[in-house]
Amino acid sequence: MDKIKVAVVGYGNIGRYSVEALLASPDMELVGVVRRDASSKPAELADVKVVSNIDELGKVDVAILCTPTRNIPEVAKSIVAKGICTVDSFDIHGEVWNLRQMLDAECKKSNAASIISAGWDPGTDSVVRTLLMAMAPKGLTYTNFGPGMSMGHSVVARGKKGVKNALSMTIPKGQSIHSRMVYVELEPGFTAEQVYNELKADDYFAHDELHVIPVDSVDNCRDMGHGVLIERKGVSGKTQNQLFEFRMHINNPALTAQVLVSCARAVLKQRPGCYTLPEIAPMDLLAGDRETLVKSLV
Amino acid sequence: MDKIKVAVVGYGNIGRYSVEALLASPDMELVGVVRRDASSKPAELADVKVVSNIDELGKVDVAILCTPTRNIPEVAKSIVAKGICTVDSFDIHGEVWNLRQMLDAECKKSNAASIISAGWDPGTDSVVRTLLMAMAPKGLTYTNFGPGMSMGHSVVARGKKGVKNALSMTIPKGQSIHSRMVYVELEPGFTAEQVYNELKADDYFAHDELHVIPVDSVDNCRDMGHGVLIERKGVSGKTQNQLFEFRMHINNPALTAQVLVSCARAVLKQRPGCYTLPEIAPMDLLAGDRETLVKSLV
Repeated sequence: MDKIKVAVVGYGNIGRYSVEALLASPDMELVGVVRRDASSKPAELADVKVVSNIDELGKVDVAILCTPTRNIPEVAKSIVAKGICTVDSFDIHGEVWNLRQMLDAECKKSNAASIISAGWDPGTDSVVRTLLMAMAPKGLTYTNFGPGMSMGHSVVARGKKGVKNALSMTIPKGQSIHSRMVYVELEPGFTAEQVYNELKADDYFAHDELHVIPVDSVDNCRDMGHGVLIERKGVSGKTQNQLFEFRMHINNPALTAQVLVSCARAVLKQRPGCYTLPEIAPMDLLAGDRETLVKSLV
Repeated sequence: MDKIKVAVVGYGNIGRYSVEALLASPDMELVGVVRRDASSKPAELADVKVVSNIDELGKVDVAILCTPTRNIPEVAKSIVAKGICTVDSFDIHGEVWNLRQMLDAECKKSNAASIISAGWDPGTDSVVRTLLMAMAPKGLTYTNFGPGMSMGHSVVARGKKGVKNALSMTIPKGQSIHSRMVYVELEPGFTAEQVYNELKADDYFAHDELHVIPVDSVDNCRDMGHGVLIERKGVSGKTQNQLFEFRMHINNPALTAQVLVSCARAVLKQRPGCYTLPEIAPMDLLAGDRETLVKSLV
């Protein structure tokens, strides 16, 4: 069987882990990496084609988009227009529907398919939440994140006065309530209290419990582990108190990249259009023939 | 919008809970219950049409099959032949693929769709196992059942010499290993040890840790709660030690019935053919418009 020809677009953390996951997938072939600056080629890409334009790669079945999330709509649109399927881990929850609508129209024009927001949240967590709704249609679901580093909050904290470097950890307090532990290297003459007040004045931090902890080295605190606990207590039919839990402790970019790579397989099985992860059949994510999969998993 | 017209075929535990779940689903209409003996009509079905042949119900979109699992292939085939979609919770793991193949051909002939083995295991547990494989393709998954009553083991235990009544509980010991706690009402002159030896000689019990406990009333021990813990430890890309857990504590027939009812909605969205639960998009299981669902769940 022909291998699926995959390009990785963008080479930050997620891009690097996507290359690893692709090389570990026997049904896939990495045709190349697309970077703004194709001349800078890290050692681990020695045997990989690195280009600045996807057109230089020849035939590509699927592009895995690993650019910053804000650029995803534009990048996805331009690649889908070439008739290439895309997958991404666009993670701005409030804008997923708009991206889906825009890209759905583009996909249908170009006879391509896209799976968007295909990381772990949004992504596989969305699948779990959907499944739990089907199992107990009435009730409450709580998604508790962490402990793990929040990229978004860390970036905001690094922008504050008196902060040389910062890392914001998300700590789950239960019932979808979180606290923020912000580890900071202070500029001389600044105090943790000043940084606390700066952060509390920012809408990004204003609504959560906040702790600011000065450290000598933020880099020594850095760990890409993350986790989630999804809980639902609900009603099946008329029967109360049905209890569900989904929990994981994972390397964050490694999981995101693996989900993207599994989706690169699934996207080729979809009809033209744009899909979120709960809108596709989970078995489409797996390599192997249907008979073996049904026999081993069902 | 027209409600989905659903018939319930068979009226044991799962049938009763399916009627409850249907009445709690605003997009569904229970058109009737099919029983071998339509003249026996329990009080709770006073306002429901009870018939002995599905043809007496007029138009039916979907039939929920709640007959004993051994009869499912035959019943499903005969109903699909009428162009009616079916869902069932066929639970003999080793025979799921054969049923799927047989019914797939029948569905395509009759322009209908079926979702089979749509309880919780096989069923929603199969979806979780599939999703975890996509998240960490290498590794081990353990499915740990219980504590909860095993219908199959209870029936076998009740058939043994010296046993007036019996209930077999499945107790999870970790790593997919289970022990069986069998609560028995003994016939006069028989001992727990004799029953233990009888059970150990039966292939159904031979391979698990076994305890036989005499009780005055098996009925006083009966509880329809059940549970599962699915664990996976695996590799995403090249990254080891990704840890996942799915746990639930549920009323067993209530959950099975709710999954069947959610599938009665999903089956109408599939192309002609026969599907297991991981082969359909989880969002098809839910009522409501796609935009609201994507916005609230993804």
